Amino acid sequence: MRLHDPEQRHFASDNYAGVHPELLAAIAEANGGHESSYGADAYTAHLQGVMRRHFGDTAEAFPVFNGTGANVVALTSMLPRWGAVITAGTAHVNTDENGAPERVSGIKLLTVDTPDGKLTPELIDRQAGGRGDEHRAQPLVVSVTQSTELGTVYTPEELRAVCEHAHSLGMRVHLDGARLANAAASLDVPLRALTTDAGVDVVSFGGTKNGLLFGEAVVVLSPEASVGIPYIRKYTMQLPSKMRFVSAQLIALLEGELWLRSAQHANAMAARLREQLEGVVEFTQATDANALFAIVPTDAAARLRETHHFYDWDAARGEVRWMTSWDTTEADVGAFARDIRSVFGASAS
Amino acid sequence: MRLHDPEQRHFASDNYAGVHPELLAAIAEANGGHESSYGADAYTAHLQGVMRRHFGDTAEAFPVFNGTGANVVALTSMLPRWGAVITAGTAHVNTDENGAPERVSGIKLLTVDTPDGKLTPELIDRQAGGRGDEHRAQPLVVSVTQSTELGTVYTPEELRAVCEHAHSLGMRVHLDGARLANAAASLDVPLRALTTDAGVDVVSFGGTKNGLLFGEAVVVLSPEASVGIPYIRKYTMQLPSKMRFVSAQLIALLEGELWLRSAQHANAMAARLREQLEGVVEFTQATDANALFAIVPTDAAARLRETHHFYDWDAARGEVRWMTSWDTTEADVGAFARDIRSVFGASAS
Amino acid sequence: MRLHDPEQRHFASDNYAGVHPELLAAIAEANGGHESSYGADAYTAHLQGVMRRHFGDTAEAFPVFNGTGANVVALTSMLPRWGAVITAGTAHVNTDENGAPERVSGIKLLTVDTPDGKLTPELIDRQAGGRGDEHRAQPLVVSVTQSTELGTVYTPEELRAVCEHAHSLGMRVHLDGARLANAAASLDVPLRALTTDAGVDVVSFGGTKNGLLFGEAVVVLSPEASVGIPYIRKYTMQLPSKMRFVSAQLIALLEGELWLRSAQHANAMAARLREQLEGVVEFTQATDANALFAIVPTDAAARLRETHHFYDWDAARGEVRWMTSWDTTEADVGAFARDIRSVFGASAS
Amino acid sequence: MRLHDPEQRHFASDNYAGVHPELLAAIAEANGGHESSYGADAYTAHLQGVMRRHFGDTAEAFPVFNGTGANVVALTSMLPRWGAVITAGTAHVNTDENGAPERVSGIKLLTVDTPDGKLTPELIDRQAGGRGDEHRAQPLVVSVTQSTELGTVYTPEELRAVCEHAHSLGMRVHLDGARLANAAASLDVPLRALTTDAGVDVVSFGGTKNGLLFGEAVVVLSPEASVGIPYIRKYTMQLPSKMRFVSAQLIALLEGELWLRSAQHANAMAARLREQLEGVVEFTQATDANALFAIVPTDAAARLRETHHFYDWDAARGEVRWMTSWDTTEADVGAFARDIRSVFGASAS
Repeated sequence: MRLHDPEQRHFASDNYAGVHPELLAAIAEANGGHESSYGADAYTAHLQGVMRRHFGDTAEAFPVFNGTGANVVALTSMLPRWGAVITAGTAHVNTDENGAPERVSGIKLLTVDTPDGKLTPELIDRQAGGRGDEHRAQPLVVSVTQSTELGTVYTPEELRAVCEHAHSLGMRVHLDGARLANAAASLDVPLRALTTDAGVDVVSFGGTKNGLLFGEAVVVLSPEASVGIPYIRKYTMQLPSKMRFVSAQLIALLEGELWLRSAQHANAMAARLREQLEGVVEFTQATDANALFAIVPTDAAARLRETHHFYDWDAARGEVRWMTSWDTTEADVGAFARDIRSVFGASAS
Repeated sequence: MRLHDPEQRHFASDNYAGVHPELLAAIAEANGGHESSYGADAYTAHLQGVMRRHFGDTAEAFPVFNGTGANVVALTSMLPRWGAVITAGTAHVNTDENGAPERVSGIKLLTVDTPDGKLTPELIDRQAGGRGDEHRAQPLVVSVTQSTELGTVYTPEELRAVCEHAHSLGMRVHLDGARLANAAASLDVPLRALTTDAGVDVVSFGGTKNGLLFGEAVVVLSPEASVGIPYIRKYTMQLPSKMRFVSAQLIALLEGELWLRSAQHANAMAARLREQLEGVVEFTQATDANALFAIVPTDAAARLRETHHFYDWDAARGEVRWMTSWDTTEADVGAFARDIRSVFGASAS
Repeated sequence: MRLHDPEQRHFASDNYAGVHPELLAAIAEANGGHESSYGADAYTAHLQGVMRRHFGDTAEAFPVFNGTGANVVALTSMLPRWGAVITAGTAHVNTDENGAPERVSGIKLLTVDTPDGKLTPELIDRQAGGRGDEHRAQPLVVSVTQSTELGTVYTPEELRAVCEHAHSLGMRVHLDGARLANAAASLDVPLRALTTDAGVDVVSFGGTKNGLLFGEAVVVLSPEASVGIPYIRKYTMQLPSKMRFVSAQLIALLEGELWLRSAQHANAMAARLREQLEGVVEFTQATDANALFAIVPTDAAARLRETHHFYDWDAARGEVRWMTSWDTTEADVGAFARDIRSVFGASAS
Repeated sequence: MRLHDPEQRHFASDNYAGVHPELLAAIAEANGGHESSYGADAYTAHLQGVMRRHFGDTAEAFPVFNGTGANVVALTSMLPRWGAVITAGTAHVNTDENGAPERVSGIKLLTVDTPDGKLTPELIDRQAGGRGDEHRAQPLVVSVTQSTELGTVYTPEELRAVCEHAHSLGMRVHLDGARLANAAASLDVPLRALTTDAGVDVVSFGGTKNGLLFGEAVVVLSPEASVGIPYIRKYTMQLPSKMRFVSAQLIALLEGELWLRSAQHANAMAARLREQLEGVVEFTQATDANALFAIVPTDAAARLRETHHFYDWDAARGEVRWMTSWDTTEADVGAFARDIRSVFGASAS
C-alpha cells in the first residue's frame, strides 16, 4: 500500500530519502533461508574484507542500527567511566541526540565554539586541561564530524593536525562520519585519506544518509583505542538480530563505487543549487558537501515551506538549512531555486 | 551478491529467518521520494489506526528497532528512577539483554523462579514487598512474556489474574510480546484478548521474529502508565530516521492476517516436530507456541549440529531448544525429525 | 594523635578549614545512646522547623553528605530522564564534579559563558530552545550558584529576574548554595531573600564550607518542583545512617546566628585582604564574598606557595584564587598580604 | 542542644549507636588549622601505613562516606561496563541499597539463594556461565559479605575456597566488610586472615557500624583488580572534602585494638542475649557475630516494640532481627531478655 507521493522530494535532510534501488536489491539477494543471527552470518564476515580495503588491514567493522547508536557505541568503547569528549558545540552528538552519550554512558561532552563546525589544535586546547585531576571529567577523546554539521569539510591536513595534537596529549580521535562519503567525494580522496591515514582511531561510518534503508557501522581503526564493542553494542540495543541485511547493504554500498556515486551526486546537487542562488540569498557557510546554510526571512521561509520542507538552523538570525541527497534531481533543484528566486523577488536565472 | 544458501533452514531461532516476501514488498512500496523522517510520515500515521483496531482506541504505537529496545523503552517510560520490575528469572529482559535495563536505565530487576516461565499472583508476592521503603528498589512494574521464553503460553485468565493482582498492589504490567502473535495463534484469540482485555498496560509488540526485516513497536494501552516515550526512544537510540519502512512493514503484517498466518504456521511446525518425536526424546516444557525444549545428550547434540544449528538451553542438564519460524517447511521438520530419530537410535516414524 | 599544625591556615579553600568548635560541641551533645538511623531521629525532625524559619513554611530539608551530592540529588529530583540544566560554564556542577550529574543521573548540562559567573534572562535564552523537540535534551531547570564560583553575588533582584524568566519558560530554578551564607552576609539579607522570596525552587544548602565537619542539605522550597528525594538520596549514596549528627550540626549552625557570624567573618577577611593588596595586584573579579581572583605571574605564585596553598584558576592567563574561611584570622591576612607585597616588590602597607 | 535520651539503647541496628568517645576525641585532635582537602592531608597519608599493617603491603585505602558508597565504588572499579556480580540474594548490595549498583554504575547483580547468607563454589557456579557471550551480563566479580547479613561468619577456609574458585574462573572477589571486625572478633583471627590471606581482592571496610561518626574505606588488596578509584569516588559523590576527619577516625580505630574491643563487645552482647533466650524463642540462624534472628509472633513483637526498636526480617514467617552494638550494655541485654521472656510467658531466668 502506497501512502505517499514517490515523486515528491524535499530539501530537509538526506534522511528524507528512501533506499537506493541497488541496496534494496542487495537486501532481496540476502533474503531467503536461515542465516545465523547477531552477526555470525556470511555477509557480516564478508563485510570485514570490504571495510579493510577501504580503511586498512586493522579495520574491524561493527554494524549497528543508526547514527546516534554508532556514536554512542564508539565513544563508550573508547572511554573509561570517568572520560570526557572534546567536540564542537554544533556536533550532532551534542545537539541532536537528546543527551544519549550522557544518559546511556555517562559521558561528559566538553564543547568548544567554532566558526565553521571544525575543531583545531587550538580549540582543543581550550578543553584539554585537568588531566589527572579527579575533580574534572577526563578529556580522553576528541570527536570530529566529517563532513561537519555546517556542511564544511576538513582537509586531510586539517584532520591530521587534529589527530596528531590529540595523540600528543594522550587522547584518541573519533570521527562521526554520518556523511563521510560526501566529504571524500568533495575532496576526491579515498575514505582512508580522511580516516586511517589522518590518524583517526574509530569511525562512525554512515550508511542511512547515503541511501541505506537503515544501518551504520562502527569501524575501529586502532584496535587499542576501543574495548568491548560486542558487549557494549548489545546492551546499548544496537545489535541487529538479522544483521545480514545491514551487512549486505554496506557491502553493496562499498564493494563498488555506489558510495561515491551517490555522494558525488548529492554534493553536485548542492553546488548546483548554490550556483543558481548566488547573489540572491546570503549563504553563511561554505558549501563543501551536500548542505547549504542561508539567511531567509521568516515570511519568505513560510512561503517556501508551502511546497518544500527544510529546517530552521538558527531561527534567531533567520538561518535555514537546505540539504540535498542521492536522489535529488536537477529538476528538483531547478524548481526549488525558481521558487526561492521568486520569493526573493529575483528574476528567473 | 548472494553469500548464503537460501534453501538452508535451522531450528535455532526465529530470528535466523529472513524477511517475509509480503513485507519486503511493503518496503519497496513505501520506497521512492521523500518522506518526513523520525515518524512524521504517512505510514506511521496510518499505523496508529491499524494498531487501534487490534489493541483498542487508546493504543498508541511507537516503532523501534529491536526487541531489547522495545523492552527498555517501555519499562523506562513506566518507571521512576527508583523503580524495579518483577519478572521471571528466565525472562529475556533478565537473561539475554546483557543488563540493558540496568545499564541504560538503572532499572532493578526483581526475579522469581518459575517452573514454566509464567508469573502468578503468588510468585509476584515474593518480590512485591517494601513499598515506600527508601532502602528498597520500588517494585512498580510486573513484566510478563507471551509466549514465554520456555515456549509456554499464558491463558487470558492467567494474564488477567496477574494484571488484577499487580494493579491491586499499585503496579503496572508490561508484556514482552516478541512472540505475542504465536501466543494469540496458539490460543486462537485476538491480540487484544491477551493484552488490552487482560489489563496489560504497555506491550512490546514483536515484528522481527514474525517475519520483519527489523522493527518492533512499543504499544501503550494505558496512557497514564507511560511517560515520555518520544524523548526516551530518541536518547536510547531506538528512533529510526527512515521510520516509514518500519511502519510500512507493521501495517503489512497487521492490516490483514499475515501476522496470524505466519504465527500459525510456525506453531504448526513446532507441533509437527513434537508429534514426530514423542516417545523418542524427553520434552521438558509444553509446546504451546513455536519453541521446543528437550533433553539431548551432549554427543547426540554434537551429531545433530553437523547439519542443523540450535541452542543449548541448560547445558548442565542437557536441555536444548529447537525453534520453528514462519518459513520452516514440513520438509524441514521431516528431515530434522529423521535426523533426531536416527541419532537417538529410533526407527523412522 | 595530632599529625598537623593547628596554627597553619591557607588561602586555598574554605574546605581546608576544620570544624567550628560550636558545631563539634553539637555533635558531642547529640552523641550517646541510640537514635533511629537514616533520618528518623529527633534532630532531623527538629531541623525541619529550623529550616522553615529561614526558608518558609513549605520548606523541607534533606540532609546529605556533601555538596556534589546535594546538587545531584536536587537536580535529579527536579528532572525527568530527558531533562537538561542551563548553567554557567564556570558552575561547580559543570567543572568540579567529574561529570557527576551526567554519570549518576544522565543529566545534560547546557552551559553558557558568563563574564562573572552569573546567569541572566538573556544568557538563559541562549540555551532555552527546542522545547518539545525529541532530538534535544529538554532544558527544564536553570541552576545558579550563590555566591558564584567567581566570588560574585547575585542581588535579590537579579535572582528574581532569573527565576521569573525561567518560570515563564516552564523551567524550575535550582540554587547551588554551597556558600549561600556568604552571599546573605555580603548583602545583609536573610537567607530567604535569596531563595524563597526570589522564586528559587530547590536549594543545595551548604554546611561544610561554613564550618561543619561534613553535611549539606537539599532544601525543597516548591514541593511540586521535586519528586522522590528519599529514594534518590538513598540510591545516590547520600543518605547518612547516623543522620542525627548532620542534623545536629545544621541546627547549631542555623538556630542562632552562627551561620551568619562565620560567613561575615570569612567575607570580612577577604575584603581585608583585598584592601591590603589594592594597587599591588590586579584583581579580575569583584570580591563580594570570600573569594579573590588575581593575576599572579607563575614565578611569583611559586614563591608564595612556599608558605601558602592556593589554587590556580586560569593558568593560561596567570589567574589564581585566594579564599578565606570562618577561621581565617586578621594575622593570617596580614602575613599573607605582606608576603604578596614582598613578592610583588611593593613596600609594606 | 540535646533532643534525645542518651541512656536509651535499642536492638535495631548497630547504626543506631553514636560515636565511640575515643573516635570523637580523634576528630577533635585532628581539628584546628587548615589541612589540604580531598585526601591530600597528613591523616590520610598516615592511614595508608595503618591499613598496610592490617592488610599487607599492597593495600591501598580510599576513605568514603558510607557503606553503600564503599560497595559501589569498589564494584565499579572492578568491572567493565558490561560486568555483573554474583552475590547472595540476601546481600545488602542487593536488598538494601535501592539498586545503587544498577542505577549508579549499571552493574547487573546475579543472585543466588543461600540458606545462611554464605556463597560457596557450587552456588557461584549457578550464575557463572555465559562468559564471552555478548548477550549475557558478564560475571566478573563475586561479592561476599563478612559477617553476613544473616549474622553468620565465613571461616577463613570457606573464604579461601570461594576466592580460589572465583579466581579459577577469571573472576575477582569483593568483600563487603561493613562488619568485618565482628567476623574477625568472632573467629579470633586478624583482619588479613579473612581478606588478604584468603585471596580477597577488594574490601569495603566498615567503620560506621563499629563506632565511627561516619566513614568507611575501600581497601584495594590486589592493585590489578581495581581501576580508577580516585575518579570513581569523586563522581559517585563519595569523596569527603574534609577527609582528615574520616582518616583520623580510621586511624584511631585501627592503630590500636579499638576495632577489636568494640567488635568483641558487640558479639559478646549478642551471645549473652542468645544464651538468655535459648529455649524461649526459636532462633533461625547461628549467632556468630552481633545479629540474632528469631521467630516472634506479630502481637508479641508489637508488645516488645513498645520499649525497643528492632526490624522485621521476614514478616511472612514472623522472623525478626535483633542487633547489638559496641555500646550495648549487659544491663540492656538483661532488660531486653526479661521483656522477651515476659512476652513469651517464660519465667525470669
